[in-house]
Amino acid sequence: MSDDRLATTPPPPYYAVIFASVRTAHDDEGYARAADRMAQLASEQPGYLGVDSVRDATGVGITVSYWSSEAAIVAWRRNAEHTITREQGRKSWYTQYELRVAKVERAYGFKL
Amino acid sequence: MSDDRLATTPPPPYYAVIFASVRTAHDDEGYARAADRMAQLASEQPGYLGVDSVRDATGVGITVSYWSSEAAIVAWRRNAEHTITREQGRKSWYTQYELRVAKVERAYGFKL
Repeated sequence: MSDDRLATTPPPPYYAVIFASVRTAHDDEGYARAADRMAQLASEQPGYLGVDSVRDATGVGITVSYWSSEAAIVAWRRNAEHTITREQGRKSWYTQYELRVAKVERAYGFKL
Repeated sequence: MSDDRLATTPPPPYYAVIFASVRTAHDDEGYARAADRMAQLASEQPGYLGVDSVRDATGVGITVSYWSSEAAIVAWRRNAEHTITREQGRKSWYTQYELRVAKVERAYGFKL
């Protein structure tokens, strides 16, 4: 539903990209601008199903994006603007990250 | 390494439980106590590999726990204390959640 605060995805199977990261203490503005742009650009890609993203006040964040297939993830990874932005991420915005590509096999939800 | 702020996991394949949730506005203390207890208990289960967990100030959170097999996830799900706590979660602590079980196929990391 439109007032949901979490991504709504179709029944499995589909894919998830789990991106856990730790922000540097600088360039919040540049980071926020790039993050917004990447979220917009990702949402326009074929096979994009949705995203959940959280960052806490200590700088640790988890973003999980959902995709219809591995091919869709590979295509997004090869996107030129995305590739340039990832390079900036390693140079300026992250002290550490872990990225995992996973196939979602089961899913269920709860809502009041 | 011990100063890492993100979970360190073995090479894939392994499993991830992606739990995205929205907190109610009440019982922060009871919730925090239960969350700490569940984190401790999970870490003692066979097949537990680690966890990443973030919640922001708006109440949206993502916890990803990592497990060696689906059987380990099923066993943790059946843990009696965990089962009781999940019930409390639906009654008191969450307005919404989505849980996904996924097989991690590829992973890579970056660290300054």
